[in-house]
Amino acid sequence: MVNVTKHDMYLDHAAATPCDSEVVAAMAPYFSDEFFNPSSPYAPAVVVRRNYEAAKHKIASTFGAKADEIIITAGATESINIAMTASKGGHIVTSSIEHLSVLEAVKNYDYTLAAVNKKGIVDIESIASQIRPNTMLVSIALANNELGTIQPLSKIASIIEQERHRRLADGEHTPIWLHSDASQGAGLIDISPSRLGVDLLTLNAAKLYGPKQVGLLWKRPSVVVYPLVYGGGQEAGIRNGTENIAGTIGFARAIELSYARRKGESQRLSALKNITRGILEEQFHTMIVSGDSKRQLPSFLHISFPGLDAERLIFRLESRDVFVATGSACSANKGTESHVLRAIGLDTETINGSIRLSFGKCNNEESVKKAAGIIAEEVAKEYERLKS
Amino acid sequence: MVNVTKHDMYLDHAAATPCDSEVVAAMAPYFSDEFFNPSSPYAPAVVVRRNYEAAKHKIASTFGAKADEIIITAGATESINIAMTASKGGHIVTSSIEHLSVLEAVKNYDYTLAAVNKKGIVDIESIASQIRPNTMLVSIALANNELGTIQPLSKIASIIEQERHRRLADGEHTPIWLHSDASQGAGLIDISPSRLGVDLLTLNAAKLYGPKQVGLLWKRPSVVVYPLVYGGGQEAGIRNGTENIAGTIGFARAIELSYARRKGESQRLSALKNITRGILEEQFHTMIVSGDSKRQLPSFLHISFPGLDAERLIFRLESRDVFVATGSACSANKGTESHVLRAIGLDTETINGSIRLSFGKCNNEESVKKAAGIIAEEVAKEYERLKS
Repeated sequence: MVNVTKHDMYLDHAAATPCDSEVVAAMAPYFSDEFFNPSSPYAPAVVVRRNYEAAKHKIASTFGAKADEIIITAGATESINIAMTASKGGHIVTSSIEHLSVLEAVKNYDYTLAAVNKKGIVDIESIASQIRPNTMLVSIALANNELGTIQPLSKIASIIEQERHRRLADGEHTPIWLHSDASQGAGLIDISPSRLGVDLLTLNAAKLYGPKQVGLLWKRPSVVVYPLVYGGGQEAGIRNGTENIAGTIGFARAIELSYARRKGESQRLSALKNITRGILEEQFHTMIVSGDSKRQLPSFLHISFPGLDAERLIFRLESRDVFVATGSACSANKGTESHVLRAIGLDTETINGSIRLSFGKCNNEESVKKAAGIIAEEVAKEYERLKS
Repeated sequence: MVNVTKHDMYLDHAAATPCDSEVVAAMAPYFSDEFFNPSSPYAPAVVVRRNYEAAKHKIASTFGAKADEIIITAGATESINIAMTASKGGHIVTSSIEHLSVLEAVKNYDYTLAAVNKKGIVDIESIASQIRPNTMLVSIALANNELGTIQPLSKIASIIEQERHRRLADGEHTPIWLHSDASQGAGLIDISPSRLGVDLLTLNAAKLYGPKQVGLLWKRPSVVVYPLVYGGGQEAGIRNGTENIAGTIGFARAIELSYARRKGESQRLSALKNITRGILEEQFHTMIVSGDSKRQLPSFLHISFPGLDAERLIFRLESRDVFVATGSACSANKGTESHVLRAIGLDTETINGSIRLSFGKCNNEESVKKAAGIIAEEVAKEYERLKS
């Protein structure tokens, strides 16, 4: 289990989450006694196969899907890359604030980027205007991974539905699908594909207090995707290689637990965010809070202290056991400027003074108040240092 | 830890191995306290990054390579698929007895299959004759996954070296590389790339008493491979997605342990194989032992009882806690005939009566004698049944 006391000022749950102790316990037998290859024919291996299929069923049922509609992958990045194959030969519309894995994956295809507004919400009109007769996929994350802004997926789904009707009327047979990476958001807000209106959905166990290196791609049966890795025919031939038994069993327990506590946890994290925001806003009137706070994950708080060097601030906070992010963890250590913050129109001075706080299971009211106090002290010290 | 008493007649170590208890212990902290994203900038995440890099270093050093020459993957299938990209635009030579993952992956390329002899050894002449001016990759497994036959990699490397010299002399600049999947064999025989003469090497933790869903591709720095999954730039941009921390730490412990016990274990398994073979040969004079026994992994015994239905036999053995394979686990449950056994010229009657025994850590002399006795009894009963 995670030592909560030790990590109670960890404010970077969007980057990684510790496995729930029940997840660790659920996985344990599959590293030892239940080690059999699920493709072997004898009974103990068949039991492993059944438990694996049952775990897939459990995962799928939390969001109203069927086991055979999900493909277990090595994480969101792989899921996204497989989702992109649904556009084979066609055009993709995505947005300028997508996760790096989407922006890198689309480079293998014909694609265009939809605009976003200053609050970090994808512009519906921009998406509509970019859809061409050969557009086969629109890919928009459920919640942005830096700002936590929740994207208007059902409105995007309506635009796609209109385009489908147009194509049908015009006798065009090119399919068009909506994919969403719901890695940020799952466990806090509704991810039901039917309610979101999506045709493909990516999830990541590692963001849900499950193991790293496990994710899934859900797709409607009518959507055709292609394998990136060929082999023994596992996962309906789309994702080949011996199945990730322990990881999938852990994923199932993680998503089940997070689903059960979703509402309470959303309220709790929202309160922790508001406490933190209140403490910092009171002290720093020039602090900029980014992202549409009415359409944002309860766990995300993105703040900027113009003029400060966020990298420096992070190291000062680290020395006092407060852990926060600058950009997303994926690009943070490359020293590159956040493409998301640039896209929403922040100036360089504000971007460089930005930190992302993401609350989660490690935190409680007491630890968050303490962390906010430490952030306030360190920000004040940094401003003081710049003055002198 | 695996319950050895419970599984001491598990004779299918080529399909899957239980994690060593030390491997499970090594992985444990990375599911809980050390859960940080290795790309995050603060100290505890940097420690995770360092431990990950140290694990890669440990893995690489067991076979005389460097950490930055290995790409951690989700297993041998993914490694093989990445290795194939080294042939981009060119031709591949592989053999008719390769693992399904190779035979499926090459279908995306221009390829030809080299012949094998009746003992399950790839024909050197056939490989030499199939190399064309545009051949960029030769891919031959170190040991065949059904027969355990050890392939003449250093001789194949010499042929490739000759071709390199010819190209150099003729002013041709097309590179040509040798890839080998050493998943079967690692932990029992030498896998040093320099001694084998290979340019790319695939390994699988799951066959080495390490976790499933972890593998690696080693390559010489001069070999260019391409990503199948794009994203955050992890593993030098070749294999994107948050790193498999726990899995890689487990892999490192597994390969270290297997390397340390390699010689003793090889002798021990060879003895177990000979005991089993002796018991069965004495009783069944028509039993066919396949694979060149002088060039075979010490852990493999491939036997056929012509006229018997191996599938039926497996279920009878299973009911008495003896677990063996028909073909490889990957295709065994698809009811397809083994392409390997067909390639070495076995007739249908012999193929259908074939089982693969692969010995390992679960077994000891006593359990193997007991298992051989049970196999003998069940084979005798089956022959008896056919007579009546």
